[in-house]
Amino acid sequence: MIEVPAAPFPFALDPAGTALVVIDMQRDFLEPGGFGEALGNDLRPVAAIVPTVAELIALFRAKGWPILHTRESHKPDLSDCPRSKRFRGNPTLRIGDEGPMGRILVRGEKGAAIVQACAPADGEFVVDKPGKGMFYATEVADILKKAAITHLVFSGVTTEVCVQTSMREANDRGYECLLIEDATASYFPRFKDAAIEMIRAQGAIVGWTTPLAKLSAALS
Amino acid sequence: MIEVPAAPFPFALDPAGTALVVIDMQRDFLEPGGFGEALGNDLRPVAAIVPTVAELIALFRAKGWPILHTRESHKPDLSDCPRSKRFRGNPTLRIGDEGPMGRILVRGEKGAAIVQACAPADGEFVVDKPGKGMFYATEVADILKKAAITHLVFSGVTTEVCVQTSMREANDRGYECLLIEDATASYFPRFKDAAIEMIRAQGAIVGWTTPLAKLSAALS
Repeated sequence: MIEVPAAPFPFALDPAGTALVVIDMQRDFLEPGGFGEALGNDLRPVAAIVPTVAELIALFRAKGWPILHTRESHKPDLSDCPRSKRFRGNPTLRIGDEGPMGRILVRGEKGAAIVQACAPADGEFVVDKPGKGMFYATEVADILKKAAITHLVFSGVTTEVCVQTSMREANDRGYECLLIEDATASYFPRFKDAAIEMIRAQGAIVGWTTPLAKLSAALS
Repeated sequence: MIEVPAAPFPFALDPAGTALVVIDMQRDFLEPGGFGEALGNDLRPVAAIVPTVAELIALFRAKGWPILHTRESHKPDLSDCPRSKRFRGNPTLRIGDEGPMGRILVRGEKGAAIVQACAPADGEFVVDKPGKGMFYATEVADILKKAAITHLVFSGVTTEVCVQTSMREANDRGYECLLIEDATASYFPRFKDAAIEMIRAQGAIVGWTTPLAKLSAALS
């Protein structure tokens, strides 16, 4: 086991059973004209973490450890998009509508793609998920089981929506989860801070958090 | 549809398809000597909502609408308790240990029972869940489907742990979710406030929130 300095106490990482999870680093959430902007959000806090997520991915590639990328996206016929999700609220563009990067949050469209700096490499897992949580209606449980993964390092956007939902699902399923603080972001910095605090409260009730520099140093 | 005043905008409630969800109103989380206290928490904020949750339950009983109670609990042999959950951190009592109300978070023990004021009545659904989320490794999905439920009203403890995790799972599955603000609580009032804000951000990204008085008035 490798001890990684973390809050609320050190994280014991198993080099033989650790995978990196990169949540939804898609153009639709990070770039102008996508779904994130259609919901009225300021893109700057999420765009700012792209280099750090790329560095974290490079660290796992150098180790030869598994990497799983998720994309929140729907089938072109939207059969996997609940009515409640499509019609809620009043976004300027709804899921499935034509936007500047193709149909919003639809698989295969430009906007649903992962940004170039974090693009998956050959042999890495890429999972399309219809929900915020990565286990619901996906093959994630099978992938992790087949690869004998027990420890997950989390990154991506947005912290309090898809990242924390996926991390909570993973925690319920018995995975030891570490969130990289500077490799995750929200459109609302105060929500990121609150989510990080909630995750590590009550003796790491959901998991641990640490900055990338501490993980890198522990793995070097 | 009944329009319930709520944030971030009115909640359209379907009287034919609405169920109340009461999360984990158990002695282990609300009373001295239980798991909540073993984790070092102040019980006062969660104990304070018991009368409001009881009033909400009475409202649904008067309407004859379905009620689903959850209990976070494990089998006596702990086969459904991940090692990561049992051994994390340094609580004064671990899951499965003997405490003042029997074995901590174990099914059938005094501490795992729902507090008297919120006790399930005959014909109400009672679900034991091993995780924080109510859909993982439970019969909840089946129960809701068979009862043709489309709308869920949430209450219980704790807001940012089991309540928000269950609400996020429900939202991914297409349920329209309304959280009753004064019928939910956390050991940490600031986490309750942050969770409520996160839930209704970005056009009700997880769902809606409202106080019990507004729901009662809308249903009267």
